[in-house]
Formats: sequence, C-alpha cells, structure tokens
Amino acid sequence: MKLLTSILSAKQFDRDSLLELYQLASSLEETLKTKRKLKLLDGYILASLFFEASTRTRLSFETAMHRLGGQVITAVGVQFSSLSKGESLFDTLKMIESYADVCVIRHPSQGASELAAKNISVPVINGGDGAGEHPTQALLDFYTIEKKLQLSKNKLKISFIGDNKFGRTIHSLVVLLQHFDVHLHFVNPSELSLPKKYKKILTTANVQFSESENLQTVKDSDVLYMTRIQEERFIDRSLFDRVKDSFKINLDFVEKCKKGVIVMHPLPRLSEVHSELDNSKQAVYFEQAKNGVYVRMAILLKLLKITF
Amino acid sequence: MKLLTSILSAKQFDRDSLLELYQLASSLEETLKTKRKLKLLDGYILASLFFEASTRTRLSFETAMHRLGGQVITAVGVQFSSLSKGESLFDTLKMIESYADVCVIRHPSQGASELAAKNISVPVINGGDGAGEHPTQALLDFYTIEKKLQLSKNKLKISFIGDNKFGRTIHSLVVLLQHFDVHLHFVNPSELSLPKKYKKILTTANVQFSESENLQTVKDSDVLYMTRIQEERFIDRSLFDRVKDSFKINLDFVEKCKKGVIVMHPLPRLSEVHSELDNSKQAVYFEQAKNGVYVRMAILLKLLKITF
Amino acid sequence: MKLLTSILSAKQFDRDSLLELYQLASSLEETLKTKRKLKLLDGYILASLFFEASTRTRLSFETAMHRLGGQVITAVGVQFSSLSKGESLFDTLKMIESYADVCVIRHPSQGASELAAKNISVPVINGGDGAGEHPTQALLDFYTIEKKLQLSKNKLKISFIGDNKFGRTIHSLVVLLQHFDVHLHFVNPSELSLPKKYKKILTTANVQFSESENLQTVKDSDVLYMTRIQEERFIDRSLFDRVKDSFKINLDFVEKCKKGVIVMHPLPRLSEVHSELDNSKQAVYFEQAKNGVYVRMAILLKLLKITF
Repeated sequence: MKLLTSILSAKQFDRDSLLELYQLASSLEETLKTKRKLKLLDGYILASLFFEASTRTRLSFETAMHRLGGQVITAVGVQFSSLSKGESLFDTLKMIESYADVCVIRHPSQGASELAAKNISVPVINGGDGAGEHPTQALLDFYTIEKKLQLSKNKLKISFIGDNKFGRTIHSLVVLLQHFDVHLHFVNPSELSLPKKYKKILTTANVQFSESENLQTVKDSDVLYMTRIQEERFIDRSLFDRVKDSFKINLDFVEKCKKGVIVMHPLPRLSEVHSELDNSKQAVYFEQAKNGVYVRMAILLKLLKITF
Repeated sequence: MKLLTSILSAKQFDRDSLLELYQLASSLEETLKTKRKLKLLDGYILASLFFEASTRTRLSFETAMHRLGGQVITAVGVQFSSLSKGESLFDTLKMIESYADVCVIRHPSQGASELAAKNISVPVINGGDGAGEHPTQALLDFYTIEKKLQLSKNKLKISFIGDNKFGRTIHSLVVLLQHFDVHLHFVNPSELSLPKKYKKILTTANVQFSESENLQTVKDSDVLYMTRIQEERFIDRSLFDRVKDSFKINLDFVEKCKKGVIVMHPLPRLSEVHSELDNSKQAVYFEQAKNGVYVRMAILLKLLKITF
Repeated sequence: MKLLTSILSAKQFDRDSLLELYQLASSLEETLKTKRKLKLLDGYILASLFFEASTRTRLSFETAMHRLGGQVITAVGVQFSSLSKGESLFDTLKMIESYADVCVIRHPSQGASELAAKNISVPVINGGDGAGEHPTQALLDFYTIEKKLQLSKNKLKISFIGDNKFGRTIHSLVVLLQHFDVHLHFVNPSELSLPKKYKKILTTANVQFSESENLQTVKDSDVLYMTRIQEERFIDRSLFDRVKDSFKINLDFVEKCKKGVIVMHPLPRLSEVHSELDNSKQAVYFEQAKNGVYVRMAILLKLLKITF
C-alpha cells in the first residue's frame, strides 16, 4: 500500500491497497476471536472529534482504538463551544496535534477533514463530511462484500436501492467498486439518481452500470445495498408520498431474489428494510456494522505505520 | 448465585445471591484500600449508554470499569442523533454488541434494557428505565444497610420517607428487602404512597410493613431512607405547599431518633435532608454513593464470569 | 515546592515553586520526545468535570492524564442534569471523591473549585471559574515564556494587548509574573484596563508596569500577549466599533517589533492576531497550547505526590 498519511477520500484507494487493507482487517478479525485486546497502540491517543453526533461511527472508532490498546479523547457536537465564540475551524482543528497521535473528524461541512490534514502534523481520518465523503464506511462495506461474496474473484451485480443522490456512503463505495469486475445497478426515484460526477467515474473506469425505477430489476443481484429515502429531500412532498413505498424490501421479496443474495444497509434504517429480515441469513447489516471495528483497526495501524 | 446474563430487575435476586454479591463487593472494597486498580477486566469494553443524563450513575459505572482495568465507550443524551432520524430503539441498541463486551443502559422508557437484553449477545445492566426499575441502586442500598447494620443477622425497621409512589429506587429496594427480616415503614403524603403492586409483593412474602403520614412514627427506625418530593407530581399545587415541609429531617430530629440510626438518600437531594447532617455519623448518603463503585465492580465481574 | 493539595489560584505559587514546576514539566516534555506514555499514574482516575464546555482545556488535561498512564471520567455541560433538578453544587461536587483520585473543574461561577477543595478528599484543579482564575493556563503561559526567553534570567518587557479587564488568564498570569524581573505593559481601550486589585499586587511587589491605549508602545516588547475584545463587554456598542481595530496585529506589525519578540494568545482568537502570522517564527500560540500538556502532567504528578 502507498504510505497513507490521512484517509480523506475513497479516491485514495486502488485495487491493491483495498485488498491489502482487507487482508489486514481480516487477520485482526481472526485474532479478536481469541483475544480481546492487542497492545499495538499502547500509548497512542485517538482524538475523536464529532462536530455533529454520529454515535455508531464514533463508538466504532473508539472501540477499534481500545481493542488496539490505545486511548481516546472525545468531543461531540455542542461541546465545541469555541466555534460559537467565533473561532475559526482551522484554529479548532489545529489543537488536535497538541493532544493526539491520530484523529477522526466528523463535520457537517465538506472539506473539513482535508483542511485538518493540510494543517496538522498527525494523520486525519474523514469520519464523514457533509455532502462530501464517508470513506471508512465505504471501506467496511467493501470488506463485507469481499468477505461474504469474494468480490475480487467473482463478477457481482450490486444494486443500490433508495437515495443514490444524497447518499454519501454510496458515492464513496461506488468509487471503491470501480476497481472490481461488477455490474452496479441503481434503483431510485428519478429525483434521487446517482450524480453525473459518479457516473462519469464509472464510465471512465469501464464499469458496467444501469438505472431503473423498478424494484423488480434487482432480483438477480448478489448484493442489495439499501438506503433510506428522506422526506426532506423532496421539494414536492406529494411526490414523496407517491414513491416512498416503492423502494422497500421484506422477507418475501428477498426470498424471491437470487440465492445467496446479501442485504446491506449503512444504518440508520427506517422502514426500507423490514425488521422481519433481521434474523435471516441474507441480512448482513448488523455484521456490516461489526466489520467496521476490524476495518477501522486496520486503518489506525496503517496510518500510524504499526506492523501487525 | 444463578448465572446472571443481564441485570434488569431487583426481582432476579434472592437472599443467597444478594449475600454472595455482598461478599464479592466487600472483598473488592477491602482490596481497593491498598490497590487502585485490578487487571481482571483488562481488554474488556463497557458501553455506557445514557439516553438520559445521570452523571452520578454513569460515572460510578465508568469508575468501576476502570478500577477493574477495563475500558469505556460513552454516549449521553443528545448524542443519540439516529433516534431523532427515526431509527428504532432496537437498531440503536443492537449496535452495542458490535462494540462492547457489556453495557449499562439508562433510558426514559420502561423496558428499554429488557429490549436490549433480549436482542443482543452481551450482558445488559439496567441503569434505570423510566418508571421501571433501578436495580443497581437498590443493590448498593442493600450493600450499605448490610455493611452498616448487618441486615442479614438483625431485624431492622427501615423507614422510607418522601415519595414512595414514583421513587423507582424505593421500589427496587423493597423487592430486595423482602428476603430479610425487616419491618418496612412508609411515610409519605397520601398522594405518594407505595403502589399496590409492591404492597402485594410484601404481603406475599410475609414482610411486616406499615404506613403513616406522620414523621414522628419513624423515630424508632434503624434506617431513614429519604427521597425528594417533586412539586410536579401534584396535580393540586396547593396541596404540595401544605405537605412539602412535613417530610424533612434535620440534625435535631435525627438526634432524637434511635441510637445508631443511619440516614440514607439515593441523591440528588433537595432540602429533605438538612445539610447540617452531612458531617454527622448518622448520615451515610455520601458513603452510599461510594459503595456504588464496589457493588458495580462486583456486578461487572459476575456478568462477565470473571473470578476474583 | 510546598506540598500542594489543590490548585485553585495563581497566588499559591512563588518563584521557587514556579521554577520547580518548570523543571518537572520540561523533563516530561523531553521524555515525551522518545516515549508516548509513562506509567506513573497507572490505576489513577481523573474526573474531568466541565460545567461549561472548554474543549481545549478539557482535552489538554485528558491527554496529560493518558500520557501518564491514568484513566479519565468526563462530564460536560448539559450532562449535569442533577443541577437542573435543584441539587446543590456542593452535592454534585461531593460525588467526585467516590469516583476519582484527582479532579479538574471548570465552572461558570467564581469559587466553585474552592468549594470542592474544601469539601472533598481528593486534589482539585481549578480549570477556570467564571470571573475568577484560570491558574493552569497561567502556568503554561509562564512555562512558554521561560522556555522561549528565559524569564528567570532576563529582564523582559511583556505587553498585554486587548481586554485586560475581563481576561482571567491575564489576571492569573500577572500574579505569577510578580515573582520575576519584568516590565508589564498593558495596552487596551480605557474601558478594559487591568482591575485595580491586580495593579495593587504589582505595586506591592515592586513590579514595573505601565498602561497605554496606543499599540505602537509595544514595539520594544519581548512578549506580545494578545487577547480578544468581545463586543458584549461594551455597554456602548458604538464605542466597540471605534476601538475594535486598534488592538490587532499582523505580520507587518510584528516584523517591525523587537527582534526575537514572541506572540502569545490563550485561544480562542478572533481577528486580533492575523492568521498570516501562524507560520511565522514569532507566533508561539500553538506551541503554547502544546505546552499545556506538559505543564498539566507536572501538576497531576505534584498533586498526587508521584515522583518522576
């Protein structure tokens, strides 16, 4: 893998570096079956700075750090009082290098992590930046697909169902998937289709992709990647009412899909995946969340240049 | 003790399991006089999830975990943003098993901890659930009474003064005390008397109990267990004004009580226990809070099946 | 150094104890160049209680504790729910001694830390108390000046520019500087001049000091200690508009100052120090923040009577 100094975007990864990260995360997962904690990051401090709350992502990183023997300092949302006093984001972020050896930043504004990475001397992980990216979510999604269906060896049809316009986890994942032999299929109301910018990336990389508003077109998929459709995305609320039930799946639907299909979701979910699916073999969204810990452990080790 | 998988209710405990927990907590207290930290839970992670803030209970658990050598991940109140996005409590709780080895949950809704315990693979501790229970508070109250007055060997008169209707710590403690030779005496405005459900438990267990609105009836008690009376509990506020000063104690009052009486309070207190009592021998409410750490250490060890 | 039991005020320090603390912090800084963590406070718990948020100060203390091998329990602002239920500050603070071995308290009311120190059995550090003091900020400021310019060996002119009336970090620092051979120069709008109480301290200690409203008078200074001027301090807002730009510095200004001048700022800053200064040799405000970790490590060791 190229030496990573920060993880800001899915665009930093190529096929080899993805497979290398997979191997490392997989070894860590295996090791954690018999050990609760490694000592690799003993003495290291992670600054976990969530300018907007995201409990799942935050706790995933903090657990990853603890499982590696490191320590964590945390601030969430309303605790960033200096910003309300008019301090620049630059100054707020600058303090990190005084306190921590690595940091993860979640911020509502696109580019916040990049601003940090350019100006502070410790590795920065983008934990989601507004309309921007959420690369570590994409990495754990990739990890889940590779682990479940051997993405690197098989041609897979992966369907993205729901909001493909605003779903930043989808955008980051699409960028990763361009390095594999896939057919990406986007199913959404026409108002919520994948932005041109990402279609262009796929075209340039010669990745097969297709679009539909018809949920039936996903039945031959290997992966159903579900996202929630938010009412506030629609200017015309009556339109929302017309489409909202067209992109939901339940157990009956999934049982009529291709054998071995897996259902993924970045969470939180609303009703787009019926809870009756939760205990089915097809549902991997809770396991997906768990994989986040192994992948983030691997990321922390890579950034801090610690060999496992 | 029966193998505990979660601690949801005071009803899970019988006399033997209470005394066994007492022994363990007592040994831990003794050990902490010469050591600051054990390594028994090195590598374990506690998820400390307080959907409503309760700084005292939360810090007590977190200290207990640290004193056992473990680590903690925390989320409090406003940080649970996914719920405001419409995520189900089930999904929010489900994430815990990806991150932690044991969890404590404080939630405003009765049954929240039970929901977690049924659906996740790690032990759950109920840190207080709305109108439901607060079993670990009851356990530390029991510990305090046993330590101070040898509840298991003596017949004690224990008086509960204040709000016996809504005080969930009282309800949980009453359930524990049914296993001992006690006389429980409830002193409160008639609007705030112990719910029938708990009287029935006492009747069934053949526990002697009595009620009064007259504070003078507690003078022969071994324990005065005080709770605050909240104005918002009264539909008729003028009634509150009439009764509010009738259930308060001060140093003069306590000195006229039985020799050796102890004054307990789950905290926070308002004016029902005069601060002039704070440094008296009778006041054990601050020590009671301290006992919470030993009892919670014992609970963590029991749930994680670690021998001390 | 006299045995410190708590750090509440800059007034507790004399010249010798300051230099002794400097030596300790300096050794710690040196050691951290090759080690990330010491084990001196293994098993100790710091309660980090910020009744008002101050992310910088809080994370600085928490990092200091982690670098010494200790653990941290934290509560910030809105999490102190018991106070809103009417609990006294005394009761809230009293809980600390049940949970922690040392604590840092930030509170909007002057005297809060002192109240804690008088009533609990563990050392208390004042992390800033309203209009009161912020002694650890003053100690890290002192550390920075001594390290950069050898305050103890040279006569320095130190100029305080901005709000000398309400700047509690200035007040605490002025109290420390009385023990050295300095010329203190205060430059501020007349509404924001140093309170008489501090001038009296300087007079009594025979410290040379002067005042001006003219920024040009600082050009021969060794230190420019900048603070922000807050609009809300002015009853007459039009006055604020007249003075607000008179106490700002930029790169051009600093280059015309004495060779070797250093620019300090307790942060957060607004526009009083132009960001073009950030990468200059003169700007030490980010390094100043970093020094906070070493100084707070030294403070923790001193209070816990642990030899390094």
